[in-house]
Amino acid sequence: MEPEEFRAAGHELIDWIADYRTRIPQLPVQAQVGPGEVAGKLSARAPEEAEPFSRVLADLDAVVVPGVTQVQHPRYFGWFPSNASLASVLGDLATSGLGALGITWQSAPALTEVEEVVVEWLRELTALPESWKGVIQDTASSACLVALLAARERATNYSEARGGMQAESAPLTVYTTEHAHSSIAKAVALAGFGRDNLRFADVDPVTYAMRPQALAKILEEDVAAGRRPAAVVVNVGTTGTTAVDPLAQIVPLARRYGMWVHVDAAMAGSALLLPEMRWLIDGVEGADSLSWNPHKWLGTVLDCSLLYVADPAHLIRVMSTNPSYLRSAVDGEVTQYKDWGIPLGRRFRALKLWFHLRLDGAEAIRARLRRDLAPVTLQTVVLRHEPVGLVSDTGAVLDADALNAHTLAWADSINRSGAALVTPSLLDGTWSVRVSIGAERTERPDVEELWHLLQQAAATT
Amino acid sequence: MEPEEFRAAGHELIDWIADYRTRIPQLPVQAQVGPGEVAGKLSARAPEEAEPFSRVLADLDAVVVPGVTQVQHPRYFGWFPSNASLASVLGDLATSGLGALGITWQSAPALTEVEEVVVEWLRELTALPESWKGVIQDTASSACLVALLAARERATNYSEARGGMQAESAPLTVYTTEHAHSSIAKAVALAGFGRDNLRFADVDPVTYAMRPQALAKILEEDVAAGRRPAAVVVNVGTTGTTAVDPLAQIVPLARRYGMWVHVDAAMAGSALLLPEMRWLIDGVEGADSLSWNPHKWLGTVLDCSLLYVADPAHLIRVMSTNPSYLRSAVDGEVTQYKDWGIPLGRRFRALKLWFHLRLDGAEAIRARLRRDLAPVTLQTVVLRHEPVGLVSDTGAVLDADALNAHTLAWADSINRSGAALVTPSLLDGTWSVRVSIGAERTERPDVEELWHLLQQAAATT
Repeated sequence: MEPEEFRAAGHELIDWIADYRTRIPQLPVQAQVGPGEVAGKLSARAPEEAEPFSRVLADLDAVVVPGVTQVQHPRYFGWFPSNASLASVLGDLATSGLGALGITWQSAPALTEVEEVVVEWLRELTALPESWKGVIQDTASSACLVALLAARERATNYSEARGGMQAESAPLTVYTTEHAHSSIAKAVALAGFGRDNLRFADVDPVTYAMRPQALAKILEEDVAAGRRPAAVVVNVGTTGTTAVDPLAQIVPLARRYGMWVHVDAAMAGSALLLPEMRWLIDGVEGADSLSWNPHKWLGTVLDCSLLYVADPAHLIRVMSTNPSYLRSAVDGEVTQYKDWGIPLGRRFRALKLWFHLRLDGAEAIRARLRRDLAPVTLQTVVLRHEPVGLVSDTGAVLDADALNAHTLAWADSINRSGAALVTPSLLDGTWSVRVSIGAERTERPDVEELWHLLQQAAATT
Repeated sequence: MEPEEFRAAGHELIDWIADYRTRIPQLPVQAQVGPGEVAGKLSARAPEEAEPFSRVLADLDAVVVPGVTQVQHPRYFGWFPSNASLASVLGDLATSGLGALGITWQSAPALTEVEEVVVEWLRELTALPESWKGVIQDTASSACLVALLAARERATNYSEARGGMQAESAPLTVYTTEHAHSSIAKAVALAGFGRDNLRFADVDPVTYAMRPQALAKILEEDVAAGRRPAAVVVNVGTTGTTAVDPLAQIVPLARRYGMWVHVDAAMAGSALLLPEMRWLIDGVEGADSLSWNPHKWLGTVLDCSLLYVADPAHLIRVMSTNPSYLRSAVDGEVTQYKDWGIPLGRRFRALKLWFHLRLDGAEAIRARLRRDLAPVTLQTVVLRHEPVGLVSDTGAVLDADALNAHTLAWADSINRSGAALVTPSLLDGTWSVRVSIGAERTERPDVEELWHLLQQAAATT
């Protein structure tokens, strides 16, 4: 495609996006398609001849938009917010238009240095320790895996340079709670620790936060049994209930056993822009790493996860490569982000953060985040409707199966209607409904409308 | 940012990109900035107030463009091609504008199903086995890590569900050649095999391709010594010289030892669109996985790597998660790509491939790839200039250090000039210069100009 064709098509697509974003409130929130319905509308073979842009654009309307759940919708209360602010969309367009190649500092100095500057902007905005350094990853899943790989290697005196995990004798263990995100157990498995060596400390029955005493006990038992504690993943804002593990009380325990402390604040990290919410990570100066996702509540379009570390040398020692074709004269003087994560080739992701912060401004972003806070820990409220007959006057569940079925049907009737989206989740074996507030376009009337819908659905389910 | 502000700024940015792509031939290829120069031009703190779009756009010109090496330049011959076709840039813009969330099929059915369709388009275009299934990853580094994790688990009867790599007794080993990409050794280290357990089979001294007899010998020795061969990474188009390991001869050996066969065709995969180049992967039907990067020569903007597997069950068994908040009624009927790789949250990357193939058409893409082929294996030519006095009449090197210094200075003088970009690389301890042809805008006169520049630089270095 020639630049002038791109210019014409690009203008059309920009208009299409502006129009689409304007009409989202009229769309059903949950995609109303069944399995295979989207694929059935697409050509089974790649086109030999170029197609006109108009036909591709028409397919966006006819096939793609009805085929996605509208997470930019003002009545999207599902999973966690996944905002794609239009300022960040412009930054991402600049990234693609530039087509820069991030493999070494030399291949695109601005890709590295804009990233260094914006992760420092966000470090300061979130009041993380001044000496910590940051890097952009795709998701918190990868960021957590990177942290656990660094932890694994520090704990084994860098066994990867020798026989790897297979040469180790006593098993390394990782600690968290059963409310940790599914990506934590996945990272433990992929990093080769083995799922048996992921240990859950008990939580407080009301707050679902890790009990430091429970962690202390399990550590003592494990060390006595010959296990070697390597890392603890501290959850700041769990997916189920935004529970917050007490970092300040966990750090001294971790220090005693020489464990790596990784803070998973994938969702809650955005709240750290608000000074009144920084209690969430009290004690962070004693941790080793923290990751959070601007692509969630903050609104920098997917994929954009920040990983901060107290000492990047731990990442570099584990992940650096130095083939001849990547060497340059300035290697000692510059940051080589390829050595801070898994991929070699990196997209210029910093531009979307840079555009987002500059075009929206920190103050307006803070005001929006404050707007979303509910009178709970953060912005996610967990609900259940308890019909007469299934729960006693004193709150005791009389028929657990029927209550679960009622809860799932309740959520499903809202979601199927397309009027709003909520996510069911299991808590202590009982299903609840999560209402996660924080879509960029959600205003008070949208929340009131959800409340109305929930009441209506409860009456008719 | 409101949709109408986005519309106005978006039109400006589209024009900016069209203009930028038009003027790239006038820009120096290698960024002419020193360490810290870009960062020094940026504000040290995030802006509290929103900035006007004009100021951000002005910084793209003043700071970002001079700060990146122009890999879209017609005289970019460095590393490997990293084309960002404008058709794919449009697709990527649609992705960001939609702001869809890929965590499960339900969160964005079209994200999953367009991906299934386009990876099948490319499977057919590259004539991979009909039963193979594909998934988009960010880079070949991640794709190779995923393949080796699957190999590790298959070889240990899924140890991750128990004690992980640490519970294994005899060491698992991985095989490749010393010409494999640096990401292979990195994946072996991160997956916990340990670098000692990455074994290099000897290569042919002329083609630098793996010698199957050498692999057979090392396998025999290792098994006799109690090691357990788990995987072989077959290089189809090495970075140094685009050497091609003989897959068809390696597969039977791998089968004999129950090894996973991963084909790393990161660069060369694009050539598989040309029927006359399919000899590159003769024998692939006996392999387990293959990855290649449309974000290289093919020209689908970074990041976009394809991983094909003979049996996705191996990926799913190792990488699946099933927390309550991600369950839905259709789980058994749909593809859940979250279980085919590391990240949970996935960008709608398929749109850029979809736009690219539809707006450019397969035939035009094939014609461009054919244009780039040089009378060597693929499109990368490795050169040395041998001045009188440093090399004898019979080709023997008389002064290796002086010849290396001459080669590096030769490449550096081209690169510093900004007129073209080439990449030095080490081969058998001697530096050479790689000329990798395949930037989308490169035409014959650009290659002739490079030849002229190389001769000029050789005379004056």
